[in-house]
Amino acid sequence: MSGIRRAGNDDQTDRFADDPAFAVHEGGKLRVVPTRMIESIADLSLTYTPGVARVSSAIAAEPALARRFTWAPRVVAVVSDGTAVLGLGDIGPAAALPVMEGKACLFSDFAGLDAVPIVLATTDVDEIVDTVVAIAPSFGGVNLEDISAPRCFEIEARLRERLSIPVMHDDQHGTAIVVLAALRNAARVTGRTLGDLRVVVSGAGAAGVACTKILLEAGVGELSVADSRGLLHAGRADLTPSKQWLVENTNRDGHAGTMADALAGADVYLGLSGGTVPEPAIAAMAENSIVFSLANPIPEVDPQMAARHAAVVATGRSDLPNQINNVLAFPGVFRGAIDAGATSITEEMKLAAAEAIAGVVGDDLRPDYIVPSPLDRRVAAAVADAVAACAREQHVTV
Amino acid sequence: MSGIRRAGNDDQTDRFADDPAFAVHEGGKLRVVPTRMIESIADLSLTYTPGVARVSSAIAAEPALARRFTWAPRVVAVVSDGTAVLGLGDIGPAAALPVMEGKACLFSDFAGLDAVPIVLATTDVDEIVDTVVAIAPSFGGVNLEDISAPRCFEIEARLRERLSIPVMHDDQHGTAIVVLAALRNAARVTGRTLGDLRVVVSGAGAAGVACTKILLEAGVGELSVADSRGLLHAGRADLTPSKQWLVENTNRDGHAGTMADALAGADVYLGLSGGTVPEPAIAAMAENSIVFSLANPIPEVDPQMAARHAAVVATGRSDLPNQINNVLAFPGVFRGAIDAGATSITEEMKLAAAEAIAGVVGDDLRPDYIVPSPLDRRVAAAVADAVAACAREQHVTV
Repeated sequence: MSGIRRAGNDDQTDRFADDPAFAVHEGGKLRVVPTRMIESIADLSLTYTPGVARVSSAIAAEPALARRFTWAPRVVAVVSDGTAVLGLGDIGPAAALPVMEGKACLFSDFAGLDAVPIVLATTDVDEIVDTVVAIAPSFGGVNLEDISAPRCFEIEARLRERLSIPVMHDDQHGTAIVVLAALRNAARVTGRTLGDLRVVVSGAGAAGVACTKILLEAGVGELSVADSRGLLHAGRADLTPSKQWLVENTNRDGHAGTMADALAGADVYLGLSGGTVPEPAIAAMAENSIVFSLANPIPEVDPQMAARHAAVVATGRSDLPNQINNVLAFPGVFRGAIDAGATSITEEMKLAAAEAIAGVVGDDLRPDYIVPSPLDRRVAAAVADAVAACAREQHVTV
Repeated sequence: MSGIRRAGNDDQTDRFADDPAFAVHEGGKLRVVPTRMIESIADLSLTYTPGVARVSSAIAAEPALARRFTWAPRVVAVVSDGTAVLGLGDIGPAAALPVMEGKACLFSDFAGLDAVPIVLATTDVDEIVDTVVAIAPSFGGVNLEDISAPRCFEIEARLRERLSIPVMHDDQHGTAIVVLAALRNAARVTGRTLGDLRVVVSGAGAAGVACTKILLEAGVGELSVADSRGLLHAGRADLTPSKQWLVENTNRDGHAGTMADALAGADVYLGLSGGTVPEPAIAAMAENSIVFSLANPIPEVDPQMAARHAAVVATGRSDLPNQINNVLAFPGVFRGAIDAGATSITEEMKLAAAEAIAGVVGDDLRPDYIVPSPLDRRVAAAVADAVAACAREQHVTV
């Protein structure tokens, strides 16, 4: 057997040699390993036939035993159709795979879960739903990833309906949980409550919708949402069902206009869209304003400029303080849900996760430390415990 | 985070404590592990965003790079709908999972491949085919497993048609390859060629059809097949398409009658069906007869009885000599196909695999050593090399 992991890497002038990201990805980032090696016929007879037949028979007679004697309950499928990958757009399943492998690494590393990337050769909503339902007995949870809006809303809703294992579209809810955690601490460090805040959200895609929902649930005082054509309001003729929902639940005074108009006197800018925001618009926000500018790698609001006007600035960048990173949420959310045997991930479990993340900061709270570092190993454990406790309280467990 | 691997195992009198097979299966038999740990923000930025975006962009621009920079090319999906699991029958996906996990362990252990069990919530042929096609970009090969006949024939044929990665139903072809290897050596040790042999196959299911095909391709002299109602011949009114194929390609004199009738004077009995064969039928076979009785755990022909009449006896049992075990074939077949970048597994590659397995026995050939031990680590390497060489010769590679 010749080596397969370095196939194609034997030319002398490797054009990928200068970028360490490619070295990290050589041969992929994951392995599947047996928990025990097979060293004898006896091992083989226990791991495989005939011993395995006794385990299969026991599960056939008593299906709940699958939770104990198979790996499925702790395996998360990281499912993507490759239509909205990072900032790269619709690059297809093969090109999306390194992102899904990375996600699987984080599930393992931060939460001790096993995760398997499943990238799909279809972008049809019905086919995606049917496919995930068909393979679901192999898994204990489904993390939907990088699926474009508005398809992502319907896919998640239908899978939640049809499956009795945790399903979560991370681009929506992972982001929303961490944003809520950060905003909770940003309010606290500036002496306000969530109810005091008027928030302007830039972006009505997957993250925009989910952040809006969780902020409303958490009691944010006032909130409006802008897309690339300006504020969402009832007079707009171009509303998809998810934007219609936003119109009905935000911008209660029905303002039209640009995002810059909306920012005048606002307490919070939440950028989830890319594009740029001019300095006068940020300068016109309320005193002690809060700027979360999460486009990556180039934030909508230049962080140095924002710091001249805002009391708290957060970005998605790892080289700046207050990094809003989904890795603070998804590993612990799935681990907690799986620990508790949860049959779904409820709104209350997401709110509990946000509180747990905010709580890890504790008394170390400062304007440049409103969320823990993505590497803080306390976070996933705290989130898992909070989510599991919430699941048990809500009796949404097997 | 509380432990999830031992959930449900805290009662004092564990009814599974006495069977070591259950201890081996506690928490499942597989783990997914990252190839590198994340210890710094720099690690995180290479494994995940923003570094991963450069790798995804490169693959989007040049799809062939997925073979180098993702794990998919060496990952085998072990796919089952749980309809024909070992001798247990239609026990469903959850109960089938321990078998698929075991198979994945063997892929890892014997061939250094990664394998992921995919058990399905559907038994519909169209849905199974569509599901596997949809998830195929995640994998480098598809091992179909424990899918009942005749559905398995159509599922495999349609997947081979629609996918350009290796697809193999192991219950058919893994068994067939090892049977051919064993029969080649059984003929040699009794001073005959395959062309000298008249073979009676008991069983017209997945393994019976595939063994018949490969034995005919390899040049066996004469062959007939019996199912539970007796010999297959053109006069039978109950023929499925696969049995119709058998009628057209075997039993050239069109004999009717029982399997026992057919065994009179035959050189080889190949049992793939369960049931029992009475001693007089075995005694009536030709001199230097060969008995392969592969039902597990109870062979169709009692091995001690067979030894009183036959020159060579083989079974599926690990506690007897000459164990016909698929693990001699599938790890090396997939490894060779994947090493070569094969777009399918051809008949020639299967024949090459059988020759490689037989070749490992070499000059140590004896009537009680016609196939290597399932634990013989030389086998997978020899099979992989032979299969890869054949794929390259046939130009069925990417």
